[in-house]
Amino acid sequence: MKIGRQDQRSSAISTSNSDTILVRGHDLAGELIGHIGFSEHFWLLLTGELPSPAQRRVLDATLVAIAEHGLVPSVQASRMTLAAAPESLQGAVAAGILGCGSVILGSAEAAGRLFNEIAMQAAGGAGIDAATTKVIGDYRAAGRPIPGYGHPLHKQGDPRAQRLLEVAREAGSSGRHAEIAHTVERLLPQLIGRPLALNVSGAIPAVLLDVGYPLAAMKGVPILARTASLIAHLLEEQQRPIGFVLSHAAAEAIDYDGATPASFKAGDDA
Amino acid sequence: MKIGRQDQRSSAISTSNSDTILVRGHDLAGELIGHIGFSEHFWLLLTGELPSPAQRRVLDATLVAIAEHGLVPSVQASRMTLAAAPESLQGAVAAGILGCGSVILGSAEAAGRLFNEIAMQAAGGAGIDAATTKVIGDYRAAGRPIPGYGHPLHKQGDPRAQRLLEVAREAGSSGRHAEIAHTVERLLPQLIGRPLALNVSGAIPAVLLDVGYPLAAMKGVPILARTASLIAHLLEEQQRPIGFVLSHAAAEAIDYDGATPASFKAGDDA
Amino acid sequence: MKIGRQDQRSSAISTSNSDTILVRGHDLAGELIGHIGFSEHFWLLLTGELPSPAQRRVLDATLVAIAEHGLVPSVQASRMTLAAAPESLQGAVAAGILGCGSVILGSAEAAGRLFNEIAMQAAGGAGIDAATTKVIGDYRAAGRPIPGYGHPLHKQGDPRAQRLLEVAREAGSSGRHAEIAHTVERLLPQLIGRPLALNVSGAIPAVLLDVGYPLAAMKGVPILARTASLIAHLLEEQQRPIGFVLSHAAAEAIDYDGATPASFKAGDDA
Amino acid sequence: MKIGRQDQRSSAISTSNSDTILVRGHDLAGELIGHIGFSEHFWLLLTGELPSPAQRRVLDATLVAIAEHGLVPSVQASRMTLAAAPESLQGAVAAGILGCGSVILGSAEAAGRLFNEIAMQAAGGAGIDAATTKVIGDYRAAGRPIPGYGHPLHKQGDPRAQRLLEVAREAGSSGRHAEIAHTVERLLPQLIGRPLALNVSGAIPAVLLDVGYPLAAMKGVPILARTASLIAHLLEEQQRPIGFVLSHAAAEAIDYDGATPASFKAGDDA
Repeated sequence: MKIGRQDQRSSAISTSNSDTILVRGHDLAGELIGHIGFSEHFWLLLTGELPSPAQRRVLDATLVAIAEHGLVPSVQASRMTLAAAPESLQGAVAAGILGCGSVILGSAEAAGRLFNEIAMQAAGGAGIDAATTKVIGDYRAAGRPIPGYGHPLHKQGDPRAQRLLEVAREAGSSGRHAEIAHTVERLLPQLIGRPLALNVSGAIPAVLLDVGYPLAAMKGVPILARTASLIAHLLEEQQRPIGFVLSHAAAEAIDYDGATPASFKAGDDA
Repeated sequence: MKIGRQDQRSSAISTSNSDTILVRGHDLAGELIGHIGFSEHFWLLLTGELPSPAQRRVLDATLVAIAEHGLVPSVQASRMTLAAAPESLQGAVAAGILGCGSVILGSAEAAGRLFNEIAMQAAGGAGIDAATTKVIGDYRAAGRPIPGYGHPLHKQGDPRAQRLLEVAREAGSSGRHAEIAHTVERLLPQLIGRPLALNVSGAIPAVLLDVGYPLAAMKGVPILARTASLIAHLLEEQQRPIGFVLSHAAAEAIDYDGATPASFKAGDDA
Repeated sequence: MKIGRQDQRSSAISTSNSDTILVRGHDLAGELIGHIGFSEHFWLLLTGELPSPAQRRVLDATLVAIAEHGLVPSVQASRMTLAAAPESLQGAVAAGILGCGSVILGSAEAAGRLFNEIAMQAAGGAGIDAATTKVIGDYRAAGRPIPGYGHPLHKQGDPRAQRLLEVAREAGSSGRHAEIAHTVERLLPQLIGRPLALNVSGAIPAVLLDVGYPLAAMKGVPILARTASLIAHLLEEQQRPIGFVLSHAAAEAIDYDGATPASFKAGDDA
Repeated sequence: MKIGRQDQRSSAISTSNSDTILVRGHDLAGELIGHIGFSEHFWLLLTGELPSPAQRRVLDATLVAIAEHGLVPSVQASRMTLAAAPESLQGAVAAGILGCGSVILGSAEAAGRLFNEIAMQAAGGAGIDAATTKVIGDYRAAGRPIPGYGHPLHKQGDPRAQRLLEVAREAGSSGRHAEIAHTVERLLPQLIGRPLALNVSGAIPAVLLDVGYPLAAMKGVPILARTASLIAHLLEEQQRPIGFVLSHAAAEAIDYDGATPASFKAGDDA
């Protein structure tokens, strides 16, 4: 059945004939393979243009920063899935990617929207401090969390966040969004009553928006980066499996508190 | 419950304390972010070692080669999924990755296993021609398809495959597996009765095995590469949606041939 | 690392020892298998209680109603995924489920939230008409669509919706939420300027909330129902494959409108 | 592009016009909703025929038997995914389904193939004992595990398996495949050197093949059943979250044994 309006029927990403594959207007075999790196290709696919050196450097830095942070929930989900279904590497990767959500890795996108909103307010004439105060106030009034700040482990400051801002300065691309990210961090104690350090999910949109990375694809950075890490974990899972060790230890941490007939004796598994 | 043996309880990929994140023994913020590119980081995550220039160049070339080839089934599945569930970019990416299976993109891994088997046979003393003849014969006897050869569109030769082999030669890394890939292509007419050109899924393991990329992670290359492309398609889908156009056109191509009561009049949607 | 508060460490769904599996306090082998049907078991798992005859009848009716509606986008995504990755039936099912999102099947949950909000307003003393007017007005002011009404194919009324409301009356369970669903339909012409008939995604929460089905699990009904249908489609896909027919026809409907070098001749695949 | 042969372009599951939805030739609103239960509908979708009472009873029994068994890996993956991505219930369900693989729940399908192979051998004239001995011997020679027997917790016999066989006898449908399942269990000590009791994944295909359930959809039974259970766990996860408790406890069970610079002090998170 026909769902929605269907008048737009085009795509501009690639086409091909039997000899040639065109990607964003470039001959894939003749101009791209062997000539550009994978992160440049990702930028080209997304935006239609090859990146400048600064764009490439900042994009690489964010992908490296967010790829790996140990046995986080999505890695565990992925390794357990491979242990149960070793026939499908793609299924285990997919299970891990599904955990890149609003609470964990998707906060990069949410922080990008926050910075963008402050930038738009500030562009209307108010200074950045006033715009920040206004937007954070709106978030608080609506009961929304402030994305991009605070970390369960790196309470004194996320070392990845500081480094990303530094790379942006080195690349000469630090701009308005990085300034906003700093401003939010500086004002948070007075606006919400306690300090919260910028985390990696806040630093990523700050430096990427400053080099023109599209906001609507912000979540793509943690997703792509984590895919690399998931593949590494799944290689290790094939070589030194821990998927079922993880699930056993996790299950042991949880009690059953539902109804129990008198005749039932809890066992090792209860 | 305890499933399987659980005596191995370690991982060597990363650890952290409140100040520092170690990835493969390197300080992530101090040594990696801003110093290495994303594809180098992927190699480091997988193997525990930073890549040589040849390893990096060949890996980049394969990722660029396989990332994008138009509105293939997995891209369509991904775009339809985003159209139906725009709240979850990660779900749409996952739906696309799930189509990296044994028939489509997973054939890179299958071709890698084929070349590896021929290499092992040849290492036993037989020449490459004899080993190829033996292994292809075994595949045929078992009714297994020959992975890595032939393409529905690029019947005269896949331009990406030729270019990948060329990049490997340029990088000085072309070796035993590329030789095997050529040998299989040369012998196929006599072994299976018709010529089939090496395709991109055959060239990828040929050049990657020659630089020491781990066979058990071979499927990771098309999965990671396609993730980049899926994110680009999903950005376009947000800006210029075609997900429901695709599903409407596809449904129109299929007839209903099940039972139909006399009273039912087929409609536009039949 | 420790994410969030972790003081709640219990689950009440099931436990077991080496002899007995308890599900919601019942001996699975002794009391449930062979004694209750699958939809009763689903209700027990969700709520901790076996359903009344009316609860069971209404739940069955909603699951039957929403299971299947032809080659919808999620079915296509699933069949294409199986064609590409036949080794993983679970991957193809997962790809289909990922399309149960806010635009397509998830609107049952959104409609449930709408009815619930109207019910809460009405419980505050206003009549249902006034509460409906208020809540629909708020939705309109916020630019939110009205979930549960209108259908691209069944413009004169969704036959499943009418039948579900009838089953609820037959079961003696039709109540406040069904009344609200009718009221919204009656008032829509004056509130939004055009009539829109209640659809199946509106009728499902109307009848389920009236029998005490939990709102937070509303999306579970289309997800469970579609899983049944996806399995049937995937059996047919194994027997009479159309996955690649769908993707070919869909790709043909889309033009490439990106950059094209003068030397490139569009081919069959353009 | 055109992949594979595309001459079959039909589906027999459903069609519709603006008034009527036909499912397997039945008017969905007029004949099915409110008249049949969900498990009957599943059988109809799969086979094109409404089930007999015995078919329905056995199908229900298998779905009830396999739906829930505590905090198994796929449930954990699903709950962790919802904790990280609460905006997508469908994503959390999908993550759980992806763990229905060859090692865990998919063994129902593998056991079905084993029984089917023995049945075909026996149909060729050999008795069931001889056919079993032959087929199990082939499995052993190929290094393949024997699916459907043994359980990490229920070592003395899986209570669900015994009950399923009993339900089949009560329904009058116990036949050749149940006999084979018993025969394998009886002969295993002499064929593989130790006793292994029939488990639920062996009993499911035994009783389902005896009522004519299609072998190629066998994995659909655990997938559909677990979907019901996953939805219940995800409702509980919304009400009493344990997703991050699970991941924290699991991570604590694993040591880091990779390279560590002298300057790095392992922290709480190491």
